[in-house]
Amino acid sequence: MRPNERALDALRPVSFEMGASPYAEGSCLAVFGNTRVLCSASVEETTPPWLRGQGRGWVTAEYAMLPRATHQRTRREVTSGKPSGRTQEIQRLIGRSLRAVTDLKALGERQIIVDCDVLQADGGTRTAAITGAWLALKQAVGWLVEEEVIKLDPVFGQLAAVSAGIVEGEARLDLEYEEDRVAEADANFVFTADGGVVEVQATAEDRPISGEQFQALFSLARDGVAELCAKQTRALGS
Amino acid sequence: MRPNERALDALRPVSFEMGASPYAEGSCLAVFGNTRVLCSASVEETTPPWLRGQGRGWVTAEYAMLPRATHQRTRREVTSGKPSGRTQEIQRLIGRSLRAVTDLKALGERQIIVDCDVLQADGGTRTAAITGAWLALKQAVGWLVEEEVIKLDPVFGQLAAVSAGIVEGEARLDLEYEEDRVAEADANFVFTADGGVVEVQATAEDRPISGEQFQALFSLARDGVAELCAKQTRALGS
Amino acid sequence: MRPNERALDALRPVSFEMGASPYAEGSCLAVFGNTRVLCSASVEETTPPWLRGQGRGWVTAEYAMLPRATHQRTRREVTSGKPSGRTQEIQRLIGRSLRAVTDLKALGERQIIVDCDVLQADGGTRTAAITGAWLALKQAVGWLVEEEVIKLDPVFGQLAAVSAGIVEGEARLDLEYEEDRVAEADANFVFTADGGVVEVQATAEDRPISGEQFQALFSLARDGVAELCAKQTRALGS
Amino acid sequence: MRPNERALDALRPVSFEMGASPYAEGSCLAVFGNTRVLCSASVEETTPPWLRGQGRGWVTAEYAMLPRATHQRTRREVTSGKPSGRTQEIQRLIGRSLRAVTDLKALGERQIIVDCDVLQADGGTRTAAITGAWLALKQAVGWLVEEEVIKLDPVFGQLAAVSAGIVEGEARLDLEYEEDRVAEADANFVFTADGGVVEVQATAEDRPISGEQFQALFSLARDGVAELCAKQTRALGS
Amino acid sequence: MRPNERALDALRPVSFEMGASPYAEGSCLAVFGNTRVLCSASVEETTPPWLRGQGRGWVTAEYAMLPRATHQRTRREVTSGKPSGRTQEIQRLIGRSLRAVTDLKALGERQIIVDCDVLQADGGTRTAAITGAWLALKQAVGWLVEEEVIKLDPVFGQLAAVSAGIVEGEARLDLEYEEDRVAEADANFVFTADGGVVEVQATAEDRPISGEQFQALFSLARDGVAELCAKQTRALGS
Amino acid sequence: MRPNERALDALRPVSFEMGASPYAEGSCLAVFGNTRVLCSASVEETTPPWLRGQGRGWVTAEYAMLPRATHQRTRREVTSGKPSGRTQEIQRLIGRSLRAVTDLKALGERQIIVDCDVLQADGGTRTAAITGAWLALKQAVGWLVEEEVIKLDPVFGQLAAVSAGIVEGEARLDLEYEEDRVAEADANFVFTADGGVVEVQATAEDRPISGEQFQALFSLARDGVAELCAKQTRALGS
Repeated sequence: MRPNERALDALRPVSFEMGASPYAEGSCLAVFGNTRVLCSASVEETTPPWLRGQGRGWVTAEYAMLPRATHQRTRREVTSGKPSGRTQEIQRLIGRSLRAVTDLKALGERQIIVDCDVLQADGGTRTAAITGAWLALKQAVGWLVEEEVIKLDPVFGQLAAVSAGIVEGEARLDLEYEEDRVAEADANFVFTADGGVVEVQATAEDRPISGEQFQALFSLARDGVAELCAKQTRALGS
Repeated sequence: MRPNERALDALRPVSFEMGASPYAEGSCLAVFGNTRVLCSASVEETTPPWLRGQGRGWVTAEYAMLPRATHQRTRREVTSGKPSGRTQEIQRLIGRSLRAVTDLKALGERQIIVDCDVLQADGGTRTAAITGAWLALKQAVGWLVEEEVIKLDPVFGQLAAVSAGIVEGEARLDLEYEEDRVAEADANFVFTADGGVVEVQATAEDRPISGEQFQALFSLARDGVAELCAKQTRALGS
Repeated sequence: MRPNERALDALRPVSFEMGASPYAEGSCLAVFGNTRVLCSASVEETTPPWLRGQGRGWVTAEYAMLPRATHQRTRREVTSGKPSGRTQEIQRLIGRSLRAVTDLKALGERQIIVDCDVLQADGGTRTAAITGAWLALKQAVGWLVEEEVIKLDPVFGQLAAVSAGIVEGEARLDLEYEEDRVAEADANFVFTADGGVVEVQATAEDRPISGEQFQALFSLARDGVAELCAKQTRALGS
Repeated sequence: MRPNERALDALRPVSFEMGASPYAEGSCLAVFGNTRVLCSASVEETTPPWLRGQGRGWVTAEYAMLPRATHQRTRREVTSGKPSGRTQEIQRLIGRSLRAVTDLKALGERQIIVDCDVLQADGGTRTAAITGAWLALKQAVGWLVEEEVIKLDPVFGQLAAVSAGIVEGEARLDLEYEEDRVAEADANFVFTADGGVVEVQATAEDRPISGEQFQALFSLARDGVAELCAKQTRALGS
Repeated sequence: MRPNERALDALRPVSFEMGASPYAEGSCLAVFGNTRVLCSASVEETTPPWLRGQGRGWVTAEYAMLPRATHQRTRREVTSGKPSGRTQEIQRLIGRSLRAVTDLKALGERQIIVDCDVLQADGGTRTAAITGAWLALKQAVGWLVEEEVIKLDPVFGQLAAVSAGIVEGEARLDLEYEEDRVAEADANFVFTADGGVVEVQATAEDRPISGEQFQALFSLARDGVAELCAKQTRALGS
Repeated sequence: MRPNERALDALRPVSFEMGASPYAEGSCLAVFGNTRVLCSASVEETTPPWLRGQGRGWVTAEYAMLPRATHQRTRREVTSGKPSGRTQEIQRLIGRSLRAVTDLKALGERQIIVDCDVLQADGGTRTAAITGAWLALKQAVGWLVEEEVIKLDPVFGQLAAVSAGIVEGEARLDLEYEEDRVAEADANFVFTADGGVVEVQATAEDRPISGEQFQALFSLARDGVAELCAKQTRALGS
């Protein structure tokens, strides 16, 4: 049995609080059960040096956890002088996902940085971050359109992300920490609202899984993302 | 006139939300107007290497701002590989203040780290951090006593902190960002509930101030801290 | 048409030179077309600090490119003081893959580090590295068994890796640099010889791909890995 | 009794050797008892990037100790890759103090860096550094006026600094190391020659001090600085 | 007796494989016995910032060892965040030597970086690197002349390098690792083909050597370099 | 003509002030003309980790320049986070030289660190540092013998160092900065008092020098060191 008698294909209670970071052009507090990630999109009227003068913009992301977001305190990364490999992987993943649904030419020579700060971590922080980051990005480009900085919304697709894994031989959606800790395989999927594939990252932990198990995770996640996208739409509407 | 018609000797609306960081042994979200600092106290059953085997504990603090706590986005410190001079000054100040009211022998060979993370910054983040950190520390040592890890509460004094400054020639209490930006002098005071002096840090910005002006700031802050300590007591009681 | 009139499902010419790094306990020069990666497995009779005293060993990997492995010279990572995010992702991927087919208890309290140094880079360096690293690892544990340090071979599974991508709308196996540069989607797969899934990492570059396209890449790669495993077996046999 | 039968309100023997660093535009070896700090002011015809084009100059300071300035050898900060928090606090304090008596517009778009290198440390190194740095700065701007680079001396005020502390319950001026080590409270004051307040930094070490004790330190330091300013004037005159 | 019954004044078997790094403008795999160094010369149409606009080019070198080039695995330098002192000494030595025979004006405003990566290390890696680097450089400037980027070959001299040392009281040429480990003195010499002195670095390990011993090393090396230069000439000719 | 009408084989005015760093176990201010280096030897009752338990001690050195030791201000190395290649070369050279005349077994399991801090730089700082470091080391081991920590002086040889170079085609001893800047070749020699060779480092700057020129530098330096050793002996005697 899963914690809280959750069904194998059920998401945890999910909510999105738009505008949670009042000074940011776009922001969203994404909550997946006990996982809480504050996503803030900042518009900067400059692009990274390697992109200048090409008539294109950039969307990127940074990810971090507050030291006591976790059950045991985690050392700040500034203490060791650099982001960990895990952090870099996650922020590269968030950035790539957002860029896959953004027309960087239409954005113009400006940059949107989405900061994803984990306030509380109970599994699935990177997928909550992507899902919330898309909302923060969408709000920020809405602001750019409203302020008449750009004419058309450059974010042409909607996406969300969810984890799935094999736990005790079962394929389960949206693992929480207690499940993640003992999972035989762990996968993160980023899909668009209409089922397009943006990112797949699947890892067998102790030993390989079968092709069938992988396909079961893929299906669970595709349905989970559809549900998340519906919730995103409601959050944007309100 | 001050913003929001505030009196020269008036604090901004202040509140303390205890337990805001559920996994931490002690925590408090300290709110001073639009300044919001999440303070989480973590108990670790080990001490820094230089203190081992001396039968004493340690209390220390770390301070950081979320990138979009500020009106303009601030670069993460991990990007430049080390905490800035300002950050180090602030975390040293918070740690020293807390240790000045803690009996480190009575704490035993363990460490309490208080993380002060600024979610929103509108002036006075370091004084809000100290005021909230004391509450988080107090809750954490309460937990240690309750769990019968230690017998007696090692935090023997109560303290709070507040800023004061000279703006347009006037001595004002608890500056917000718009005032701080144009202040002629800026001071941070840490006092105990019964008026003891823990830390004084006063800086003339453009040109020296008079001895009388300094004394006016000192008095304003002493009264402000008394009011903050009363609020702390209510927060702990609830 | 692909470069060199290669079929969509064809690997480049592949070869493995065992023992290419004479001082190492195991080594293999893995060649995929113009991509050449020197994989050296070093046995160390110690484990990382966080693993000590648990009766288990560790397998890890490091990855780097010689500056002039690439068409344009690439700056050494030591110059910027830390491995890039890309490098860290790759070395984490290689290490996880190898551990998924190794019984760490059976290895005993020792560590095998597999260094994957790219001498020449023409696309697919990370998959060549994994494929060669498995051979170097296998040779190193063979040496441990021969030297009677351990009784049984702890590497219980055989694996190889290959890339696949969508180029000009077509699913193609084992992209070379000129293809990779213009791919719409890029994926890396690690499978076992018997079709088990070890790692899947798929990324849509500019816009999402369809579920069908993803499945086509999956199939291509599964067959490609089967072919690579047959070649590995021959290399070990000789 | 204080060491060397010094009175509670007495400075240690103080001297200033102007021109101690022959290549610098201004320099002073400041000696307070056994504390010796070499202060060298360098004029650079450029300003920090964030200040460019604003028609203003900058005054800043750097502080360091020779490894064997102390009774036990201290590790060089370059070894750990960055200045310690203490060093950064001190150099920020010196820089702020000097800027509080300098008209940065009148200085023009150039920078003066005052290096304060402690050759021997016996307590009070930061206050000796500030007192000597003001002399080095004054000599450097004198050179700028003499060379007709600027017309008027931009240093409009005179300042000096001194420490005071509570030792064995007594308020004492200008602590040496043996006193500092056991002080209950430690404070550093920067005043102008006419009693203006530039910086106050007071810290209770083990437990809070009373408001009266703080005021006693304040008075002691104000008189001590008056005496130091008289000595500075003599040093400049010669 | 020396290993392999080598004569005191004999080089190990030496070979040069030109073009070993196919993407580089010039390259050479230099082999001295079991020491193998891959030297790749990269032409960049830019110079270091401090040299710009002076009408001169630059030649520089970088040096590194693969982790398992050595009998025991060596940690990558990127792990500690910076090149070791030894590495920096060697790359400064290689660069200086090459510049001593290059007309930087004739090279024009471009830079040639010679990467020397040790694939296998058995003593004398720095001298093999210099000897191979000169060949890679020569090939790269040959390419520049052929491409008509420059008119005349700016490398006006030919040089090679060799080690010599005192082992068991004897002066020996071209030490291998087993000899180097126990040498009483160790010296590296860079000479031109016609006997000019480019660099001399001699170090007594445990106790000083006599002036006569130093002169014996000097003579051995001068003859060894003459032999190496003849081999270089043949390698270039082919 | 040389500056100050100095003869080709003449040293600059040289002096040694013993005990210049009062807290150190041994110290010497070495003055060669306008070059002034403060050398302080610190005894530590511990050895580097890699040497522990072998019954041997260690002698090492660190080298740095005050920022305004030079005609133009030099940036502190701590600012860039690591010692430069030049600094590392120099401190390795000083340490090796001292160890070549010290019996590390006789020193016992302790370390002597000699800090060489350049207060003023006018050429020849590394050779002045070595010459002064030997005096500081000698004084420190004298203290160890006097304190009866060790029985016999482990420094069995006397050494000094001097530079020589080819300037305007002439071989000159002990170059000052104005000569060094334009030298065609630059060499540093460390000899013992009785003419033993400890270190030779010769570098041709623009083009190779002849073997005869190298020998002329060698002779000049050997005589210069003999003179320096005589002065050292006098300094120790007083």
